Amino acid sequence: MYLNENLLKRVVEGTAFLGSGGGGKMESGFTFIREILNFTDQVEMLTFPLTEVDKKRTACIVCDMGSITAFDPKQDEALCFAFESLSGHFCNELGKIDAVFPIETGPENTMAPFLLAAKYKIPVIDGDGAGRAVPVLMLSTFAAGQVKNWRPIAISNGLGDSMLVSASDLSKVESVLRETTHTSLFSNSSSLALWPDEVGRIADKCVQGSISMALHCGQLLRGIRIKDGALIAGALAHVNQLEGFLIGKGKVIYKTSDEKGAFNFTTTKIEQVDGTIITIMSQNESLIAFQSNLNYPIAIAPDSICYLKSDFYPCTNAEIGIPAEDLQTEELYLIGVKANDKLLTEKILAGFKTIINELGFAGNTDIPHTNSRPLGDLFLDLAEAAALS
Amino acid sequence: MYLNENLLKRVVEGTAFLGSGGGGKMESGFTFIREILNFTDQVEMLTFPLTEVDKKRTACIVCDMGSITAFDPKQDEALCFAFESLSGHFCNELGKIDAVFPIETGPENTMAPFLLAAKYKIPVIDGDGAGRAVPVLMLSTFAAGQVKNWRPIAISNGLGDSMLVSASDLSKVESVLRETTHTSLFSNSSSLALWPDEVGRIADKCVQGSISMALHCGQLLRGIRIKDGALIAGALAHVNQLEGFLIGKGKVIYKTSDEKGAFNFTTTKIEQVDGTIITIMSQNESLIAFQSNLNYPIAIAPDSICYLKSDFYPCTNAEIGIPAEDLQTEELYLIGVKANDKLLTEKILAGFKTIINELGFAGNTDIPHTNSRPLGDLFLDLAEAAALS
Repeated sequence: MYLNENLLKRVVEGTAFLGSGGGGKMESGFTFIREILNFTDQVEMLTFPLTEVDKKRTACIVCDMGSITAFDPKQDEALCFAFESLSGHFCNELGKIDAVFPIETGPENTMAPFLLAAKYKIPVIDGDGAGRAVPVLMLSTFAAGQVKNWRPIAISNGLGDSMLVSASDLSKVESVLRETTHTSLFSNSSSLALWPDEVGRIADKCVQGSISMALHCGQLLRGIRIKDGALIAGALAHVNQLEGFLIGKGKVIYKTSDEKGAFNFTTTKIEQVDGTIITIMSQNESLIAFQSNLNYPIAIAPDSICYLKSDFYPCTNAEIGIPAEDLQTEELYLIGVKANDKLLTEKILAGFKTIINELGFAGNTDIPHTNSRPLGDLFLDLAEAAALS
Repeated sequence: MYLNENLLKRVVEGTAFLGSGGGGKMESGFTFIREILNFTDQVEMLTFPLTEVDKKRTACIVCDMGSITAFDPKQDEALCFAFESLSGHFCNELGKIDAVFPIETGPENTMAPFLLAAKYKIPVIDGDGAGRAVPVLMLSTFAAGQVKNWRPIAISNGLGDSMLVSASDLSKVESVLRETTHTSLFSNSSSLALWPDEVGRIADKCVQGSISMALHCGQLLRGIRIKDGALIAGALAHVNQLEGFLIGKGKVIYKTSDEKGAFNFTTTKIEQVDGTIITIMSQNESLIAFQSNLNYPIAIAPDSICYLKSDFYPCTNAEIGIPAEDLQTEELYLIGVKANDKLLTEKILAGFKTIINELGFAGNTDIPHTNSRPLGDLFLDLAEAAALS
C-alpha cells in the first residue's frame, strides 16, 4: 500500500499514543512528513503477508537515538548519512539495501524509515521491534536470538560526521553509541542504521503490522474527534486487536524532566477527581506508574502507558509541559496497552526489569491483573462517557 | 552519667546499627573517640529525667552534614569552629551554650557532640532528633513546631572557613547549607551548630534516651559476640523497648554508590538462600527495601532498615563494599526497627514520602504489617539460631 500525507499524519498520531509516551516528539514526526513531501507524494509500505520476492530483499533497521526531546534540524540528513554509510559497508556482502524497518513505534522513529523510503524510492516494511517505544535497542524484538550483521552499526549527525561502530558484543555496541550520542558533536541526537539482513529473516522477529496498527489507531482517534462514522468503522476492528485498560484520568499537576546520558527522565503526576495521585516515571518512554493509595505499581512495562488528552488527541512525554502553578491544564486519560507477545520473552522481560530497577522499583513486576478490553471499544466508551458528562 | 572509652565505643556500635545505614561511617565515630581521649578520659551525659537546673541550661544541636562517605581529617576542628561561631553570635541573647545535642543517631553524628563536650567541658544531653539517621535536618523532631533561633545556622570546614547562614525559611536555610557543603571548599563534608535554645524546650521535642539506647544496643551486641551473660542481662530489657523485625538475610551481591548534591545514594542487593533478592535503596540512610518476589516495599522509612553482620557486628552503608565478582562476602541480617512515635507526625511522614518518591517509589507507603518483636529478643533468637546451624 501507499501512504500519502493524510495517512502519514494518522500514523504519527497513532504512534504518539501507542509509543508509551516515547519514540520522539510528535513535532519531529510531522517535520519528517514535510521533508518526505519534498521527495514524493506517497511512500510505499509492504504489508504482511510479504511475498516471497519481498522476503528476499535486503533491509536494515533505522532509528534516531537520544533524548526524546532532542531533534537535530538536519535529522533527515543524519538518517541518510547513516543509511548510506551502512549500505556502503555491506554492499559487497549483501547487495543493495532496498527496504527499511523502523526500530519501534513512536512519532519520530516510525517516520524515520519513511524519510529514507521517500528519498531512496524503497519501501518501508510494516513492522517494528516492539509495537511501542523502548528505551534501548537491546529491548527490541530484533535483538532476540542471533542478530545477523550486528556490527558495525552506522551512526551519524546531520553534518555527516559518521562512524561505523563495533564492540565485543551487541550490548556494548549500544553503550558506545549512547556515549557517542551524548557528546557535543551529536548533542543527544544521532541517527542510526543497523542490522542489515534479508527481509524475511528480520520480519520473523518483528512485531508485524505495527505501522498499520498505528495508522488505524490514528484514524480511529480522528474519527472520534470529528465524529466521522466511516473513519471509526474502518478502524475499530483493527484497533480492537490490542487490549487496553484505563489506568486513570486527571490533570497534570507536576512534572520534572532531567537529561542524563542521552536519555530524558521524567516524573509526571496526575491528580484524579477522587484526590488520588498517579505518578508516571519515564526513561524517554513511560515505564512504571504508581497510584498514591496503592502500595504496588498500577502499570509497568513492557505493557505500554499511553497518554490521550480529553480532546482525544494523543501526546507523548515530550508534549506534557511543566504545569505553571495557577494553570488549569486539561485532563488526560492514562491508558495501559498490553504488550505484544513477542516482548514477553525472558530476555526482554529481564531487560525491562533492570531498567525499572534503576528507576527505583526493585519488587516483583507481576501486578494485580487489570481487566483489559479491546482498545478500540475502550476509546469509544470513553468518548461516549465524555459526551454525556 | 559519664562515658569512658569503652562506653563510647559501645555507643558507636549501637548507632551503627540503629542509624538505618546512615549517620556517618563507623570509622568516623572511632576517630572522634580518639580525639575525645586527647581532651579527657570520660564525657558527661545528662540522662532523662533532667533536673530543673539542667533544663535551664542553653544548648544547641550539632552535626556533620554531607555524604556519609565524606569525612574531613579536621572534622573535629570544623565542629569547634561551627560551635564557637554560633556561641559567639548568640551569647548576648542566650548566654553561654553549655550543653549539646546530637542531631540524629549514627556513628559520626552521635559522637560529634561528645567531641565538643570533651573539649569545652560541657555535657551531652541523652536525646536526638530521630532515634535513627535522617537525610535532611527538616526530618528531625527538633524541626517540629516552632524552632526557636532557627537562623542563622553556623557552618564550618576544618580550616575555620565558616559562615552564619540565614534564609527566608528553615528549609531554605538547609538548601543553602547543602549547596555550600557541596562546594569544593567543603568537599561534601561540613560541620554545623544550630538551633540554640533552653535545654528543656529542646528536650521536649527530642527522642529522649536515644544515646542510652545506642549504648545498650552496642552492649547487647558485644555481649552476644563474646558470650558475656552479664553484658547481655544488663542491656536486654533496655533494647527490648524497641520493636524490631527480621527483613531478611543473605550475601551482598551488588552495590552501586553515587555522590550527588552532598548525598551518597546507594543501591544494595542481598541474595537470600531461597534465591529472592532484597534491594535496599539509600540516600545516606537506607529508606526503602524491596524483595524480588513481592510487588510492594517490604520496609520503608521512617522505620529503620538496619544491617547486622552474621558475626553480630553492625555496619552502615559506608562499610558495605562493592562486591568483587568472585568474592564470597559474608552474610548480613537486614533488620527493621519501628520508628519512634515522634517521627510519626504528618509533617515528618510527608517529608519522608517526598524523599522516597524521588528515589522512585510513588505508591502508598502503608505496607502489610510485619510482626515486630522486642529488638533484644530478636537479636538473641538470631544468635541462638546461628549457634545451632
